[in-house]
Amino acid sequence: MAKPTVLIVCTLDTKGEEALYLREQIHRNGGGATLILDASHTSQNVQRYREWSDEIIAPCLEHSQELSTLPRGKYVDKAIELCLPPVKDLVEKGQIHGIVSAAGSTGSSLACAIMRRACPIGFPKLMVSTMASGDIKPYIEESDITMMYSVVDIAGLNSILKRILGNAAAAIAAMTNAYAQSLTATSPGTESSRRVGISMFGVTTTAVEHIRKLLSSPPHQIETYVFHATGAGGRAMERLVDEGQLDAVIDLTTTEIADELFGGVLTAGPDRLEAAARKGVPYVVSVGGKSALNYPSIY
Amino acid sequence: MAKPTVLIVCTLDTKGEEALYLREQIHRNGGGATLILDASHTSQNVQRYREWSDEIIAPCLEHSQELSTLPRGKYVDKAIELCLPPVKDLVEKGQIHGIVSAAGSTGSSLACAIMRRACPIGFPKLMVSTMASGDIKPYIEESDITMMYSVVDIAGLNSILKRILGNAAAAIAAMTNAYAQSLTATSPGTESSRRVGISMFGVTTTAVEHIRKLLSSPPHQIETYVFHATGAGGRAMERLVDEGQLDAVIDLTTTEIADELFGGVLTAGPDRLEAAARKGVPYVVSVGGKSALNYPSIY
Repeated sequence: MAKPTVLIVCTLDTKGEEALYLREQIHRNGGGATLILDASHTSQNVQRYREWSDEIIAPCLEHSQELSTLPRGKYVDKAIELCLPPVKDLVEKGQIHGIVSAAGSTGSSLACAIMRRACPIGFPKLMVSTMASGDIKPYIEESDITMMYSVVDIAGLNSILKRILGNAAAAIAAMTNAYAQSLTATSPGTESSRRVGISMFGVTTTAVEHIRKLLSSPPHQIETYVFHATGAGGRAMERLVDEGQLDAVIDLTTTEIADELFGGVLTAGPDRLEAAARKGVPYVVSVGGKSALNYPSIY
Repeated sequence: MAKPTVLIVCTLDTKGEEALYLREQIHRNGGGATLILDASHTSQNVQRYREWSDEIIAPCLEHSQELSTLPRGKYVDKAIELCLPPVKDLVEKGQIHGIVSAAGSTGSSLACAIMRRACPIGFPKLMVSTMASGDIKPYIEESDITMMYSVVDIAGLNSILKRILGNAAAAIAAMTNAYAQSLTATSPGTESSRRVGISMFGVTTTAVEHIRKLLSSPPHQIETYVFHATGAGGRAMERLVDEGQLDAVIDLTTTEIADELFGGVLTAGPDRLEAAARKGVPYVVSVGGKSALNYPSIY
C-alpha cells in the first residue's frame, strides 16, 4: 500500500508560508508523506515553490492568465473545475488518505468544495478557516468535513496561528495514518451486516425509534442509520446510498421536499428521493413531516 | 509532567456506549490517558459505569434528582454550572491536555460551553456533533473548538459512526500529545516578541495592512494578530488580552458596537472594549466601520 499521504490544498500566491508551515508540522507530528495542491488565483510565487519542491500539483497554473482576470466567485468555480479531476484520481487510486487546508472565506469555499466532491464520507477532511464560527452549512453540506476556527486571520504566521495550525497538523496526520491503516485491516462482524438508513424529524421520532428497535433486534440484526431531515441529513443519506454504504432506505420523513418546493431553509435540493431509485436499493417512502415548513427566524 | 490526558465529556445515561467507543479508539490511536466527565440528565446507568471504571468524574450525580425534573434548557445551564469548576481545576493543574465530546444538540450546547469557558485558546477541543452542518456560532463563539459533523445520528454505533468517531479519536489523541509536549518544549524566538492585536473589516483593510507592515518590519518587528470584526473576532481579541496572549491592541474597527446597540448580527456582546482597559495593556481605539450595521438576509 502507498505511504499514508496528506493532500494540502492551498494558494501558493498568497498563503505559501502558512501551507509550508502546515506541511512541516504534519511531518513533525508523525505524518507520512505530503502532497501540495496549488489552486492559486495568480501565477505569483508558484514557479518558485515548484522549483523548490516536487510535491506540488498545480492544475491551475497553465490557466493562470485567464484565472487572474476573473473576479473571486468565478475564479473559485473555475479552480474547482480544474482541481477536481486530479484530486478524484488521487483518491480513487488510493494515493492520498487525508486532505487539509487553511484559508479565509474564498479559500474555504474552494477547498471545501474539493473535499466534499472528491472524497467519500469517512475519508479524513480538515478545514482551518476564519469562517468557522458562523453558518458553515454552505461549506459542509452533507459531508463530514471537520472545521477548525482559526481565531486570527490567516495572513502571516504568529504564535497563536502556529499553535492552531500545529493542532490541525497533528489531527490530520493522525486521522490520515488511521484511515490508511483501516483500509488494509479487516473489520470482522461489520461487513456482513445489512445497513438501513431511516429519515427522522421531531414528529416521526417515536415511529423511527420503534422501527430501529425492530430492525436491530433478532432475527433481523440490521445496522440502522438515522438521518435528521435538516437538509444536510437528507443529502447525507442519499449520498451514502450513492457511495454504496447503505443497502436499503426507510424514507419515513420527507419534510425536506416541502422546504424545497416552498422556499424553506431545510431543503435538501431538487435531487432528493432519487438516489435509492437510481441505485436500485429497496426503498420505502412515506410523508412524515410533510405538513411542516421551516422558515428562518430573523433574530 | 502528567501523562497526556484527554477529557471525554458525555452523558452516560444516554450515550455511554458511544463515549466508551471513543475512549477505546483514543487508546488504540496512541492516546495517553483518558478521563470521563459525566454530565447526565438522570442517574440511569451512571452508577454501573462508575463501578466498572475509576476514570469517571460525575459532578452532576449527587444532584441527579433535581436535574431529572428540569426541562432540557435548564438542565444544560445547571450541568454547566456543576461541571465547570472541576474542569477548570483539571486545566489549571495541567492534568488534562485535550477535551472531546460526541453529541446531539443538547449535549453539544453543554460540552461546547464547558470547552469554551474552561479551556484557553490553543488547548485542543473537538466536538463531534449532529449540529455541525449549520450555524455553529452559538457553540464556537470566540473559541477554537473544532467541529466534526457526525453525518448520522449519535444513537447507537454503526459502521459510519464508528469511522467518524475513529477519526475524532485519532485527531484528539494526536492534538493532546502534541499540546502536552509543547508545554515542556521551549520555542525560541517567539517568547521575546511583542504581540499586537488589530481589528479589521472590509472598510479598514487597507489601513490595517499598512499598520501591519510598519509594525512587523524593523526596527519594531512586532508580531501582529488580525481579528475580523465579525462578533466572534472582537470577542476572540478581547479574550486573548484577558488570557495574557496580547501585549497591546489597535482597535481600529469597532463596528461591533453599532451592531450591539442597534440589533445587528455581528455584535460581540455588551462587554466589547473592556478587556484592554481591565488588563491595563496599551490600547488605541478608533471608529472604523462604525457607520455599518449588519442585518441578516432572510434568504
